[in-house]
Amino acid sequence: MEKFQNKIIKEILEYYENLWSISHVSSLARWDIRTNMPKAGSKARGKALAKMGSLRQKLFLKPEFIDLIKKAEDEKELNDYEQGVVRVLGKSLEKYEKLPKEFLEKKAEITTEAHGIWEKAREDQDFKKFAPILKEIVELARQEADYLGYEAHPYDPLVDSFEEGLTTKQVSEYFESIKNPLKEIFEKVQKNENIAQEHVLLDTHYFEEEMKKLNKKLLEELEVDRTQFRDDIAVHPFTTTLGINDARITTRYNDTDFKMSFLPTAHEFGHALHGLQCDPDLARTPLSGHGMSIGESQSRFIENLIARSKPFLARFTDDMKELSPEIKDFINKEGVDGVYRYFNAVQPGFIRVEGNEITYHFHILLRFEIEKELIAGNIKVEELPEIWNSKMKEYLGIVPPNDSLGVLQDVHWSEGYFGYFPTYSMGTFISQMWSAKMQEELGTMDDLLNSDDGIRKIKKWLGDNVHKYGCTYTMNGLLEKIVGSRLDPQPMLDYLEEKYVKV
Amino acid sequence: MEKFQNKIIKEILEYYENLWSISHVSSLARWDIRTNMPKAGSKARGKALAKMGSLRQKLFLKPEFIDLIKKAEDEKELNDYEQGVVRVLGKSLEKYEKLPKEFLEKKAEITTEAHGIWEKAREDQDFKKFAPILKEIVELARQEADYLGYEAHPYDPLVDSFEEGLTTKQVSEYFESIKNPLKEIFEKVQKNENIAQEHVLLDTHYFEEEMKKLNKKLLEELEVDRTQFRDDIAVHPFTTTLGINDARITTRYNDTDFKMSFLPTAHEFGHALHGLQCDPDLARTPLSGHGMSIGESQSRFIENLIARSKPFLARFTDDMKELSPEIKDFINKEGVDGVYRYFNAVQPGFIRVEGNEITYHFHILLRFEIEKELIAGNIKVEELPEIWNSKMKEYLGIVPPNDSLGVLQDVHWSEGYFGYFPTYSMGTFISQMWSAKMQEELGTMDDLLNSDDGIRKIKKWLGDNVHKYGCTYTMNGLLEKIVGSRLDPQPMLDYLEEKYVKV
Repeated sequence: MEKFQNKIIKEILEYYENLWSISHVSSLARWDIRTNMPKAGSKARGKALAKMGSLRQKLFLKPEFIDLIKKAEDEKELNDYEQGVVRVLGKSLEKYEKLPKEFLEKKAEITTEAHGIWEKAREDQDFKKFAPILKEIVELARQEADYLGYEAHPYDPLVDSFEEGLTTKQVSEYFESIKNPLKEIFEKVQKNENIAQEHVLLDTHYFEEEMKKLNKKLLEELEVDRTQFRDDIAVHPFTTTLGINDARITTRYNDTDFKMSFLPTAHEFGHALHGLQCDPDLARTPLSGHGMSIGESQSRFIENLIARSKPFLARFTDDMKELSPEIKDFINKEGVDGVYRYFNAVQPGFIRVEGNEITYHFHILLRFEIEKELIAGNIKVEELPEIWNSKMKEYLGIVPPNDSLGVLQDVHWSEGYFGYFPTYSMGTFISQMWSAKMQEELGTMDDLLNSDDGIRKIKKWLGDNVHKYGCTYTMNGLLEKIVGSRLDPQPMLDYLEEKYVKV
Repeated sequence: MEKFQNKIIKEILEYYENLWSISHVSSLARWDIRTNMPKAGSKARGKALAKMGSLRQKLFLKPEFIDLIKKAEDEKELNDYEQGVVRVLGKSLEKYEKLPKEFLEKKAEITTEAHGIWEKAREDQDFKKFAPILKEIVELARQEADYLGYEAHPYDPLVDSFEEGLTTKQVSEYFESIKNPLKEIFEKVQKNENIAQEHVLLDTHYFEEEMKKLNKKLLEELEVDRTQFRDDIAVHPFTTTLGINDARITTRYNDTDFKMSFLPTAHEFGHALHGLQCDPDLARTPLSGHGMSIGESQSRFIENLIARSKPFLARFTDDMKELSPEIKDFINKEGVDGVYRYFNAVQPGFIRVEGNEITYHFHILLRFEIEKELIAGNIKVEELPEIWNSKMKEYLGIVPPNDSLGVLQDVHWSEGYFGYFPTYSMGTFISQMWSAKMQEELGTMDDLLNSDDGIRKIKKWLGDNVHKYGCTYTMNGLLEKIVGSRLDPQPMLDYLEEKYVKV
């Protein structure tokens, strides 16, 4: 491990393997809840996860370990990796010192229990079933903010825990900078009837077995290595990275919109690749993770910039013909151009994860505005469906016919994740910063995707410039190092203008 | 929790939830290795499990906890449950005090790594690939025996760790008492040509999808509750009990012998039921497990006494006709009697888990004799294939054509389990002790299985007399309490004589 030379850092990393091990088995236990666990197992699982969480906290707060971290903070001449270790652990230490053990146990128990309740409420399209436990979770989030402390806004410490250093004010400014340009693009695109109708054209029923085959081929085209990867089915697609040699994604099958299993598979593969291409020297260290925005920049890269592109989609048109008789007719008539329009249709929709490259960000803006006020205590849980629906009307001009297509659609709140959503939008904007830089070095995306070794080259570029660093740097730290600038919405706005308006 | 009244015991149980939680996630992690984990994940998993093991040891050996156990040992007027807690924890304490942390970590790491190596060697029919790591594992087992200490034989402490109080001498005596009677029954049965030929008659290829349907129906007939149960596919069938509401079995599909997926499913279901019917008051306490022999008595009960019985098999003859054209012809001609003969054919075979009710015990005897000498240092790992084959010749008159059908067939050694096998044979003999007692109370097994609520009644009897106690009592303690005698081979020998010789 030549990256870690400093003696104190080495001692820290040795001890850290205990903490990593608890995280590893806890992540597996959470993955299992969503993929395999029999329903009745949730109570015991919640208790186990709660204990694992407080055990991790206790081990973290061992005076000898704290001493090491404090000592390391005073060390001079640490290299970037060593500084990263100190930064990440200092951050965790602060959090663990502020959050009481009982609080963390309670949060783990309640959020584990909440998952099943959310699933049922969503299935039954009944927000009332979810409301009571959501109330508890919101109360916990508000308590968490109090424990962590804040100056400007109680939402600040929550946002910060998903993206180091990010504040409510910065998120507001970010949305201010993209809101109007996106609105303009959205309005221009909506005038294009051809694109707007595409979704309806393909509204048919797809064979699930054929969708599975298609996803299998998708992963093969992305050159997946199955010795360190697996994919399963879950209600809400997600990725779990259990180590630099074990990443797992899930997807779901929607029989009326096959791109809604194709795109999530590509998206989650992007996350998985991020973990798998981390530098092996960082395995089982505090640096083997990553901030949420950088994470999302990787999933969006694969989903939007690769899987929605024409040359990549062209690899699948024959396979897609097998999905249903109607799509066969459609592809025979319209060819890959039709498929491309279908995958890039810009219509307002109810579901965030089904959002297109433009409307997606309004879904996030809506959640950001709601969360901010919920945490500030200005919105009550009971009011959520109404507020949700009125904001949908405002931003996208549509109102969900039921809560499963509205306020119940996301898993995040059931897990106690408040402050997470903004990173989805920011990460998406960052993906185009990487892409622009990569294309400077490797040639255009289209050329890459039209060549035999393009996927390999792209994966290597992402590995060398993003993945290998884990969370050695902060979001803006890494952007500055690789791209030469902090989060900048312009490359994405240019790309959207080019892709959706000029053509 | 009215079962636990004593203040010290209550304190113990509260602290124990930490230990239970580590066991819970570790069990899940081991289950995952065999069902889901991408191969390349094994190294990190091994490290995590090693750390979890030593963390559990460390928490167990906390002076305050040891004090509580010691104090509880001096308490008077403890009820059976409280005494059980003290007994089980005292046992673990002794083991943890004697085994160094570094030893347990090394064992966890090596055995995790070994699983993949064993699978590969078995696939390639190449013992040489497994031998080097098996040598290390044997060496660790020998060290473990030294650490734990023994008077008569180094195998003693290993046997004892799977069945409390059991010694090498007792196992030898047990085998002495069953060897000749079984041999006699075996010889008598072999003269019955009809039974001996049955296996060959059904040597055809089965449709995997239909086998899966059959297993699904099997579990339904056993009245499985899927809210707390799941079944998966694995190389070696096994059960993992993650709590009193989460038990998971695996099975495998063998396209030339469908009873080899039917019977393991029944077997593992018996284990799962054992865990699921434990008294909820014992959840997350040291009493929620059970000794290995009592465990095996439950799996064998379902496998042999129910699933191999004529009235139970009769429920499936129509479904079995779908398995292949040949078996359809066979069942049309021979009916349920033919199916019954097939499921109870007594032929020598290479594979332990495919053994019938008679030859099975010779498979175990062979392993016991080998393990005993391996641990004593009288056999070298390199010699295993040869010794294995010569013992097969001696006991069953056949020699495996390759090591995958011989010395490589079992997963146990790769997991470091030496001393486990004898409990399989003993547990099988115990199953008939339960059955005899149950039939005294509920009527004959045939009558029960011919009635609509028979399965429900049998499950309830097992729940009330065996399962609910967890490991409150030792093997012989529970037998004496319920049946009124210690391990007694006679009921099983009578049953075998009646079933295989008299008919």
